[in-house]
Amino acid sequence: MAAAFSCPVFLPSTFSYNGNRYHGRIKIKINATSSTKVKTLNEIAGAGKGSSSLATSTEIGHLSQEQIRQRIPTKKQLVDPYRQGLIIERGVGYRQTVVVRSYEVGPYKTATLESLLNLFQETALNHVWMSGLLSNGFGATHGMVRNNLIWVVSRMQVQVDHYPIWGEVLEIDTWVGASGKNGMRRDWLIRSQATGITYARATSTWVMMNEKTRRLSKMPEEVRDEISPWFIDKRAINEDVPEKIVKLDDNARYVNSDLKPKRSDLDMNHHVNNVKYVRWMLEVKIKALPSIYINSLKFHINLKIITTSFFLQTIPDKFLESHQLSGIVLEYRRECGSSDRVQSLCQPDEDETLTNGVEQSLLKNMILTPGIMEGNGYLGPLDVKSYGYTHLLQIKGDSKNEEIVRGRTRWRKKLSTLPYSS
Amino acid sequence: MAAAFSCPVFLPSTFSYNGNRYHGRIKIKINATSSTKVKTLNEIAGAGKGSSSLATSTEIGHLSQEQIRQRIPTKKQLVDPYRQGLIIERGVGYRQTVVVRSYEVGPYKTATLESLLNLFQETALNHVWMSGLLSNGFGATHGMVRNNLIWVVSRMQVQVDHYPIWGEVLEIDTWVGASGKNGMRRDWLIRSQATGITYARATSTWVMMNEKTRRLSKMPEEVRDEISPWFIDKRAINEDVPEKIVKLDDNARYVNSDLKPKRSDLDMNHHVNNVKYVRWMLEVKIKALPSIYINSLKFHINLKIITTSFFLQTIPDKFLESHQLSGIVLEYRRECGSSDRVQSLCQPDEDETLTNGVEQSLLKNMILTPGIMEGNGYLGPLDVKSYGYTHLLQIKGDSKNEEIVRGRTRWRKKLSTLPYSS
Repeated sequence: MAAAFSCPVFLPSTFSYNGNRYHGRIKIKINATSSTKVKTLNEIAGAGKGSSSLATSTEIGHLSQEQIRQRIPTKKQLVDPYRQGLIIERGVGYRQTVVVRSYEVGPYKTATLESLLNLFQETALNHVWMSGLLSNGFGATHGMVRNNLIWVVSRMQVQVDHYPIWGEVLEIDTWVGASGKNGMRRDWLIRSQATGITYARATSTWVMMNEKTRRLSKMPEEVRDEISPWFIDKRAINEDVPEKIVKLDDNARYVNSDLKPKRSDLDMNHHVNNVKYVRWMLEVKIKALPSIYINSLKFHINLKIITTSFFLQTIPDKFLESHQLSGIVLEYRRECGSSDRVQSLCQPDEDETLTNGVEQSLLKNMILTPGIMEGNGYLGPLDVKSYGYTHLLQIKGDSKNEEIVRGRTRWRKKLSTLPYSS
Repeated sequence: MAAAFSCPVFLPSTFSYNGNRYHGRIKIKINATSSTKVKTLNEIAGAGKGSSSLATSTEIGHLSQEQIRQRIPTKKQLVDPYRQGLIIERGVGYRQTVVVRSYEVGPYKTATLESLLNLFQETALNHVWMSGLLSNGFGATHGMVRNNLIWVVSRMQVQVDHYPIWGEVLEIDTWVGASGKNGMRRDWLIRSQATGITYARATSTWVMMNEKTRRLSKMPEEVRDEISPWFIDKRAINEDVPEKIVKLDDNARYVNSDLKPKRSDLDMNHHVNNVKYVRWMLEVKIKALPSIYINSLKFHINLKIITTSFFLQTIPDKFLESHQLSGIVLEYRRECGSSDRVQSLCQPDEDETLTNGVEQSLLKNMILTPGIMEGNGYLGPLDVKSYGYTHLLQIKGDSKNEEIVRGRTRWRKKLSTLPYSS
């Protein structure tokens, strides 16, 4: 019960990974110049003890190379020493310790939003990995594979209070819950391992799609029996009524009509990855630039992502130092094909007062969070002017355009300090 | 003594990360809804015990937030539980266990070359991290910072025998050695943790540059004293005479003249990352496509990277299934500025016999590797037809073009199986 953030795309063929499965008995010879290890398959199959219960001696002859190399557990595991993961929350939640890597940060040493989204995906999949339910797919359970079902995300919301820095140790918690009758919610919390301070929170909702018909599906009883024991009623983000995201049209101030899915955008499920959508949403170009709209430029200058806007190269460093993305909501509407041509639209809020739903939700969470208002050295939410933007990704059609995803982003001044009190 | 794969770019200003350093006494309050931990700074400063000797109680008042969050060790460490790293090779080498993450693989579940390059950078930096020599920079030692010196890479060579798959546990070894009088070599080996089979090997050479004058520098005695105790005479790749890479000109078959460094291409040292160079090298477009050159298309279809070539979208899947990048050599010539416009040229080898230096080097290593010729189910090197390409990245100037990097790539049929013998 995980799901990766992907929108399935239509590709003409399926691909059987690594072709040959091996069905005979196997002896292993080693071609390592610097290693003197020589292991038999029995040793290899047993090597994952504690983290994997995959192999028994009778099964070995039927293990594929892929199975030997991946060692996906077939039973629930409580600890995974390689992934530094463990089961929490009375046996149903997952916590992973991760270090922010050098290539996950941007020029200011802080992790990019893209890196956080990648870590959400990774921990979600590792949660399913630990559950013993993971089948040969991208987060699909055995029951889902039997029913040709895959996960598709319908909504994703992320709030970032503080961006972690290079070398920082994080704890990422993730868990799942029910969402309506046929859906699933997955939430995340990112905390500093050293201080326990919450850096980011996220929530997402998922539904099942038939891989062949590409139609949404009810959750079969077989699948419900697998995943519902893992559901808990706890939320990373408190939000009573999700805000409505308006649909943009050609009057939007920023646009980029030159976006194409590439092979490199496809993940192992041959889907365009969610991270790519976020890149696209922010790859907008300025159609016109009246000086009164200078505030809206702040939108452009924070996400350290690939962008085609020449304008980006000329933004003063002081903007980059002072603002960051604080919240994002994505609503997925339809699949995006690998041959589709995608257009990205963006519109800044005209009214910068705090009447916006995302902002209210953000504010509410901040107020609900104990201690956050008490720090003297901390710019509390009431000091923070934030800027909102509405986004739309759509497929350019001959007769009509089709929506892929609607989005909202919030931006605010960077906090000068972490919430330490003096 | 590590160094990240970066080419310094000229940016107008320096940026002091996270502005304020905190100099008073600090009490910590926690704003975590799901965590009941409340730690004092003493606990936090002591939390890294075993992996960090950074903080003593007398130092605490002077720790910056960044120091508290990063906890870079000031003394040599033997084990880093968070990074799963340990010191090997009689105290001077570094080994890190990593799991191939879901977002590090391409559509065929195998790690991308880009991911391997990222892991090389990460382990190199973590090696310096463990040494206690890491200063506040991107792999620079304390002595280097005192002398305004940064590392720049002059050459990088990677050979990939097998691409690891999603979920696979790897051991990455890295170590350094002398390179001439003023340079340093850094090597890497990637092995399967389960079998000990070597998947990839890499070597690189580094020199020092004065950060202010942008001129190459001799290695000061102070720096030599820091890093030379870590030097060992061991090589991941056996190569007596590095092959010469010819310089391409406008007659090259593939070209992309539309490449611009973007903010998102800059790493925390405000440099264009080496990984970006590899992307650029392979972001070439076909100027013409005579059908007799169909073999050369194989170059385009393997690296799962961002590319602007529409052509890529239409390559038959059977090519993708059957070929992969097996070797790459990069020779760095000069810095690339953030305002430069970069052109990427590429030329396939006309003569596909095994007379090429890279190929010979590859072949020699394969033969030197015990056991590799013995596997019956394994396509040995003599069965493997490989395809070579020469690359050039240059800055388009008004009067003349300036070279940034020359490259060679080798491509070969994917092995149908790992080297197990039956």
